[in-house]
Amino acid sequence: MANKSRPNEFDLIKEYLSPLTQAESGAALLTDDAAVLPTKKDHHLVVTMDTLISNVHFFNDTPSDLIASKCLRVNISDLAAMGAESAYYSLSLSLPIEEEMKYDANWINNFSQGLATEQALYGITLIGGDTVSTPGPLSITITAFGWVKEGKEINRSGATCGDLVYVSGTIGDAWLGLTALSGSNMEIEPSHLNFLTSSYLRPQPRIDLGQRISVFANSAMDISDGLAQDLGHICKASNVSAVIKSDDIPLSVAARVLVQTDPELLKSLISGGDDYELLFTVPSKFQKDIERLAKELEIPLTQIGHIDTLKDEQLVTIVDSKGAKIEIASSGYQHF
Amino acid sequence: MANKSRPNEFDLIKEYLSPLTQAESGAALLTDDAAVLPTKKDHHLVVTMDTLISNVHFFNDTPSDLIASKCLRVNISDLAAMGAESAYYSLSLSLPIEEEMKYDANWINNFSQGLATEQALYGITLIGGDTVSTPGPLSITITAFGWVKEGKEINRSGATCGDLVYVSGTIGDAWLGLTALSGSNMEIEPSHLNFLTSSYLRPQPRIDLGQRISVFANSAMDISDGLAQDLGHICKASNVSAVIKSDDIPLSVAARVLVQTDPELLKSLISGGDDYELLFTVPSKFQKDIERLAKELEIPLTQIGHIDTLKDEQLVTIVDSKGAKIEIASSGYQHF
Repeated sequence: MANKSRPNEFDLIKEYLSPLTQAESGAALLTDDAAVLPTKKDHHLVVTMDTLISNVHFFNDTPSDLIASKCLRVNISDLAAMGAESAYYSLSLSLPIEEEMKYDANWINNFSQGLATEQALYGITLIGGDTVSTPGPLSITITAFGWVKEGKEINRSGATCGDLVYVSGTIGDAWLGLTALSGSNMEIEPSHLNFLTSSYLRPQPRIDLGQRISVFANSAMDISDGLAQDLGHICKASNVSAVIKSDDIPLSVAARVLVQTDPELLKSLISGGDDYELLFTVPSKFQKDIERLAKELEIPLTQIGHIDTLKDEQLVTIVDSKGAKIEIASSGYQHF
Repeated sequence: MANKSRPNEFDLIKEYLSPLTQAESGAALLTDDAAVLPTKKDHHLVVTMDTLISNVHFFNDTPSDLIASKCLRVNISDLAAMGAESAYYSLSLSLPIEEEMKYDANWINNFSQGLATEQALYGITLIGGDTVSTPGPLSITITAFGWVKEGKEINRSGATCGDLVYVSGTIGDAWLGLTALSGSNMEIEPSHLNFLTSSYLRPQPRIDLGQRISVFANSAMDISDGLAQDLGHICKASNVSAVIKSDDIPLSVAARVLVQTDPELLKSLISGGDDYELLFTVPSKFQKDIERLAKELEIPLTQIGHIDTLKDEQLVTIVDSKGAKIEIASSGYQHF
């Protein structure tokens, strides 16, 4: 397709973003100063906000529909971790002044189509936002809104001594995908490459799972900074500790093959980020319920350890099959 | 005070941002993935989002408390234009990687104190957000939330033939302030300089006025892109036209002195932006009510023209005291 120059702000909103709104959402086709949202009886509104920046949170050459996808999904994942259903989002798009040929009408069209795909998948609707020019890199901020029944939200601070610690899906695939995309010479089987890079580029927010575990879970969060660090966040907020068995951490076939060759790699999978799986703790009496839920939703839910009292400030202890402690050097992703 | 290095993300949140939350707001001291907000009976939630970038929307050397103030106020002004009361905001702060010495703990402390001042003034509370490092300039995105009684929101699209067009306050002072700060050699009286630069740096969102006019006004918006262009937005959304008398546009003493010297300057005041005054239209039967409201709130509310039918695509016509049309060359601020 021929390169089309970047539309001005008003055309960009009218042509590409307005079609993503729905009249009933109160956004009035993005023609007003603000959106007006109806509230929902017996529900609280859950609000989360994440900024993603080119070459910090995604590669500069990532196709724009995948950028749109990732930006929405990391926010939806936060809603999932609170036990909420996704509903709305607002978008602030900062487009680089300098690279007008790159961020042209085609780029924006592909970006808005990426948003449309995610809207259909996750039942979420654009309600407003902002578009600006920046002398800096492409930067995207999304504020996402979800509904949770009053009293059904899951916090980080509810983990209780004796709780079982669960994770959904498999751990470390996104980190391996990021490592592969970064040009590492790690020997990944060609047949596994696409799975791993997709895990990084298009995480699967566990939005149904979050709502379903809200009746069982004492605490939950999504794994964005790495399993070890995020479990530490739960423990700190709950004033408890956690003991995790490294052998029980669920790995994909792709990851397992690599760990067999290099057992030290497991530490990177545990401390790497971007999994966007749910990490949650439940009283042991609900073990069977969680097993049933895993079957029903067809999502692996794996018990990886348990919650204990807090001793000596040690929030998270990871032990191998012989009971020896595994030291994790990196404490996970630091935003700065 | 000694220069302190920048705190890491977790300390920044804990030390500087958490104190800006309140337990009842559901933000749980920013320890969770998302905030949980109670809804309000018989009210809709109004949501607006604005991004401000250093050297685009404010000068690089603006003190950080004034940056905080401006970022919050432009958002609160959008809530005001909808007739809402301000309630909450979330904040995404992108701090430059390169300038760690500039954006240090003192800068952040001063920024958070600026937020605290505005919170107290406008009854608004921090509920969450994000903090990231950017290779680009300082960038701040705020999503602000307000409440409006069901059916009481004011849209842009309700302007009706015969409506009187009003503006609050005076027009063009912020543009003059920006021009002065940009190093123009315009001859501004020294005694007026502080008033004009303050108009630019610390606009006054008309949050009380917005709620009070919601019973009278058919349409409203806040003037951010310039009076002429923003009135065009109302006319376009409402499918009407507007006729404005240039002599009736309210000017401050500072602006009036300058226009007397250079009558052409009036065009710049009408097309300049950043006023953050309310522009609204009301049926003529409410003229006395608006006059009473102006006295009660001690805010100048000036009738500058009226709404007419749309002819020949001419949205806004500005005429001088002799009835001659004034052509505005610039169509106001374009975001890109």
